[in-house]
Amino acid sequence: MPQTPVTATLLISCADQKGLVAAVSEFLYHNDGNIIHADQHTDREEAVFLQRVEWELDGFAVPREGIEDAFRPIAERFGMSWSLRFSDYVPRMAIFVSKLPHCLYDLLARKRMGEFQVEIPLVISNHRDHESVAGQFGATFHHLPVSPETKEEQEGKAFSLLRDERIDLVVLARYMQVLSAEFATEYSQRTINIHHSFLPAFAGARPYHQAHERGVKVIGATAHYVTAELDQGPIIDQGVAQVSHRDSVDDLVRKGRDLEKTVLARAVDLHLRNRIVVYGNKTVVFD
Amino acid sequence: MPQTPVTATLLISCADQKGLVAAVSEFLYHNDGNIIHADQHTDREEAVFLQRVEWELDGFAVPREGIEDAFRPIAERFGMSWSLRFSDYVPRMAIFVSKLPHCLYDLLARKRMGEFQVEIPLVISNHRDHESVAGQFGATFHHLPVSPETKEEQEGKAFSLLRDERIDLVVLARYMQVLSAEFATEYSQRTINIHHSFLPAFAGARPYHQAHERGVKVIGATAHYVTAELDQGPIIDQGVAQVSHRDSVDDLVRKGRDLEKTVLARAVDLHLRNRIVVYGNKTVVFD
Amino acid sequence: MPQTPVTATLLISCADQKGLVAAVSEFLYHNDGNIIHADQHTDREEAVFLQRVEWELDGFAVPREGIEDAFRPIAERFGMSWSLRFSDYVPRMAIFVSKLPHCLYDLLARKRMGEFQVEIPLVISNHRDHESVAGQFGATFHHLPVSPETKEEQEGKAFSLLRDERIDLVVLARYMQVLSAEFATEYSQRTINIHHSFLPAFAGARPYHQAHERGVKVIGATAHYVTAELDQGPIIDQGVAQVSHRDSVDDLVRKGRDLEKTVLARAVDLHLRNRIVVYGNKTVVFD
Amino acid sequence: MPQTPVTATLLISCADQKGLVAAVSEFLYHNDGNIIHADQHTDREEAVFLQRVEWELDGFAVPREGIEDAFRPIAERFGMSWSLRFSDYVPRMAIFVSKLPHCLYDLLARKRMGEFQVEIPLVISNHRDHESVAGQFGATFHHLPVSPETKEEQEGKAFSLLRDERIDLVVLARYMQVLSAEFATEYSQRTINIHHSFLPAFAGARPYHQAHERGVKVIGATAHYVTAELDQGPIIDQGVAQVSHRDSVDDLVRKGRDLEKTVLARAVDLHLRNRIVVYGNKTVVFD
Repeated sequence: MPQTPVTATLLISCADQKGLVAAVSEFLYHNDGNIIHADQHTDREEAVFLQRVEWELDGFAVPREGIEDAFRPIAERFGMSWSLRFSDYVPRMAIFVSKLPHCLYDLLARKRMGEFQVEIPLVISNHRDHESVAGQFGATFHHLPVSPETKEEQEGKAFSLLRDERIDLVVLARYMQVLSAEFATEYSQRTINIHHSFLPAFAGARPYHQAHERGVKVIGATAHYVTAELDQGPIIDQGVAQVSHRDSVDDLVRKGRDLEKTVLARAVDLHLRNRIVVYGNKTVVFD
Repeated sequence: MPQTPVTATLLISCADQKGLVAAVSEFLYHNDGNIIHADQHTDREEAVFLQRVEWELDGFAVPREGIEDAFRPIAERFGMSWSLRFSDYVPRMAIFVSKLPHCLYDLLARKRMGEFQVEIPLVISNHRDHESVAGQFGATFHHLPVSPETKEEQEGKAFSLLRDERIDLVVLARYMQVLSAEFATEYSQRTINIHHSFLPAFAGARPYHQAHERGVKVIGATAHYVTAELDQGPIIDQGVAQVSHRDSVDDLVRKGRDLEKTVLARAVDLHLRNRIVVYGNKTVVFD
Repeated sequence: MPQTPVTATLLISCADQKGLVAAVSEFLYHNDGNIIHADQHTDREEAVFLQRVEWELDGFAVPREGIEDAFRPIAERFGMSWSLRFSDYVPRMAIFVSKLPHCLYDLLARKRMGEFQVEIPLVISNHRDHESVAGQFGATFHHLPVSPETKEEQEGKAFSLLRDERIDLVVLARYMQVLSAEFATEYSQRTINIHHSFLPAFAGARPYHQAHERGVKVIGATAHYVTAELDQGPIIDQGVAQVSHRDSVDDLVRKGRDLEKTVLARAVDLHLRNRIVVYGNKTVVFD
Repeated sequence: MPQTPVTATLLISCADQKGLVAAVSEFLYHNDGNIIHADQHTDREEAVFLQRVEWELDGFAVPREGIEDAFRPIAERFGMSWSLRFSDYVPRMAIFVSKLPHCLYDLLARKRMGEFQVEIPLVISNHRDHESVAGQFGATFHHLPVSPETKEEQEGKAFSLLRDERIDLVVLARYMQVLSAEFATEYSQRTINIHHSFLPAFAGARPYHQAHERGVKVIGATAHYVTAELDQGPIIDQGVAQVSHRDSVDDLVRKGRDLEKTVLARAVDLHLRNRIVVYGNKTVVFD
């Protein structure tokens, strides 16, 4: 891993139009870019073009700090939304958790094992239960209990912590509080939630109880970006597991836990590797 | 297949209570029953016991026509809902279809190939499109177009046809008309529908369009028994397929078709092999 | 479907090198090509570049019959293997079958329903069993029984039939005879087989029996292009199904049948829609 | 969890014969056993009967310490292999690990979170890498490096450690050393390994490299009991994941890691909840 050459990645979305691919590929070709990965997608219904292209900095004619300026004229010509990422940047991630720790453990262990290229300086919870877990993995734990009266104030404290720690990505790891629309906007496309069901889901609480009640033969979990509208954000990944009449509610919860942590980890991994572009209320996952 | 020994199958459900398994197994043991398959399930929340037991008629001390009478005292003692089936009975099935024929073709071909032990004398449709398909596979086709004014009358005709043909099982193979509550009651636990989505589903029509709109990463199909409440009947089987941003609505429809026909065929197969017990709004599938 | 605009599709593979994407996209851009689908892949280990690009003929500056000549200089500059397909060409497919007809029925029904854009003029079998099925779906049936002595002669007859019918694609739909290396070479990348197992598979015959013997919890099926070496050709698609101790060999065979026909149909569909590029012993599936 | 009533579980296997179910159910019925779970399976090919039955100790007429003696006559009459487990017994588990820690972390975290009812006093490794992980989760770490010369001696030390800690279950969590036939025999049906592939697998090392080389579209992982013959033991569980040409070897390894830890954890969970009966070279998983 350490010797992997440093790369730049462009994530692009814009109205579909002729000449887009030609323009981007010309830019890289004329500057001697050695392309590592390139993928693109056109949503015909929405007439939106999306692209991910990654190339080695070594040998590229434009120095690293000049790439943005060099590319900007192309971006402006086509009216692109775009961002540029470098592979040696280590993002900073905060985890929000409540009582159920399986996703928290899984994310912290993956970071420890080197599966994620990330720092996790911060764990925030409305309960004290998992303070020692955070400490064990080198993260600072903050207890921000939430009641209807304190909700706004506590979210303000959370904002400060996220800013102080220069957090790039917020992960809601079975965090059972609804964040405000301001939060969703401020950390738009940078907050990932794991929902313990398919979407569309049973309306209301306790989806595994409802799934059992309904007698379903498949359960699911959904990782999505958080938006102002609850559980309506762009879906990143979904996983499923077969169940049967032999599964009690406890069995569904147990199988669901494994789905939740696996699906959430996949979504976080895709985000950290700059594989996702959001447009409208959807994602393109360049896997 | 032809030399398979003839078996009897008991399907039982009742309030959970001690001594149930002992009573049924004693009954079979004392009459020299050679058990081929036995499975049971207890729903702890509902305190319901369900059992399926299948044994060879050959060598059984009670003659075939006396088994019902011999078992009745046990059934009455425990307050059982129960039915007795013989493996050499060939059920009679009717298929309802509208414009989309993939499930119709699949079911007819499976019967022709000997995958299903069933007769399919009757195909009913609100369109004329697939008349020749029915004929090609030896079924009589009836065109019963439905409008709000004629709905009741046409369903009456369908009833007559089903009765005249002594139909045991009705399969709605992408039949796009809603049947009346009377129908659902009359053919309760004997009408299987294929729903082109998970349940719970997107509210409203065109689930693949909605799934695409929502940007889901998994699609599903659900086979269930029809009840008076639309799409709320006991689920028999569900299937899923992974999708991605690369899939257009047409791709979802295409992948969905394969799900629908496979899931529907599995449900029909389980029903024909007497593998399903319904209780409340759920199924136990003794697979 | 009928009003879908006619498109041209380029399938390209060559040694990876700079400027490839720029050259192809320039070619299309300068000729006013309206791109419908574009995808590419680079195999880093093998340093191979592969691309699929599809654009509308309507409005393209180069007339249909001139596209090959117009593109050839680019292809020669980069040393490309390439082919050009038009979406209004209807390929011609032959099906080889033995005793088990589930894949045969499924393919013929899909063609009949319009799922496949294909002609199926020819069914060849070493048994007479399914002669009437072929006829029912409008294909000519040829009975070519094979013994060690007649194998070469019968394959010669098959060759003639394929040539006379100008067959583009041969599908082995559970055809239980091994074709010669000459056949595999002559119809290289144009013969699809369904293997009733994962690859790598249990060595020897009757994989479902071996799977049951081994007590596996998952079974699979594999669709692949046929090469001279048995079951070693490029894999197009694989499917899996969960099984348990409750499944007898017959149950595995039954579940396997559904896998086989679904996986084979997916592979045929991908081939017919010009979605597959073969390189070395692998496929890239531009789905 | 703590208030769950204490249960007894019988795991039974024997030659299939009439009267088995009647005898066991009579035994429980006459002693006022409140059955919590009962499931059975008959392997027709092998003529083997297997059963799992679990009932509450509270209210059972036979005191806990007398159940074995009370059941023995029935067991002897039918020639049963059987074992009796109590739900308040906390098994003791040792984990063997080499360089790759994802399964180790996952198992330790599940125990910590209360997902497994188990003690994990012991982690053994042929490398020092994960000593601190063991300590962090309260297990004693033993470094037993293995070379061809020291293999026998080190296995002897491992034996002593397992005996001293009264270990019930050994889990090979990506342990890359082959254990001796003596070990497999001594801990027969009590040693679980995770194999990073389907079985049957590619022959030889590095299955993900081979899978990539072969161009497969599905990868798998297999949890099995260890026997004297390498990778030939009874399969407990298998998992699969779809892959495509877009997945590099690194991607397969990454997806494989998630499969491995999930499948291994499922197998360990089933074992700890007394859900598995082994017979011949197969398992019945009463899930």
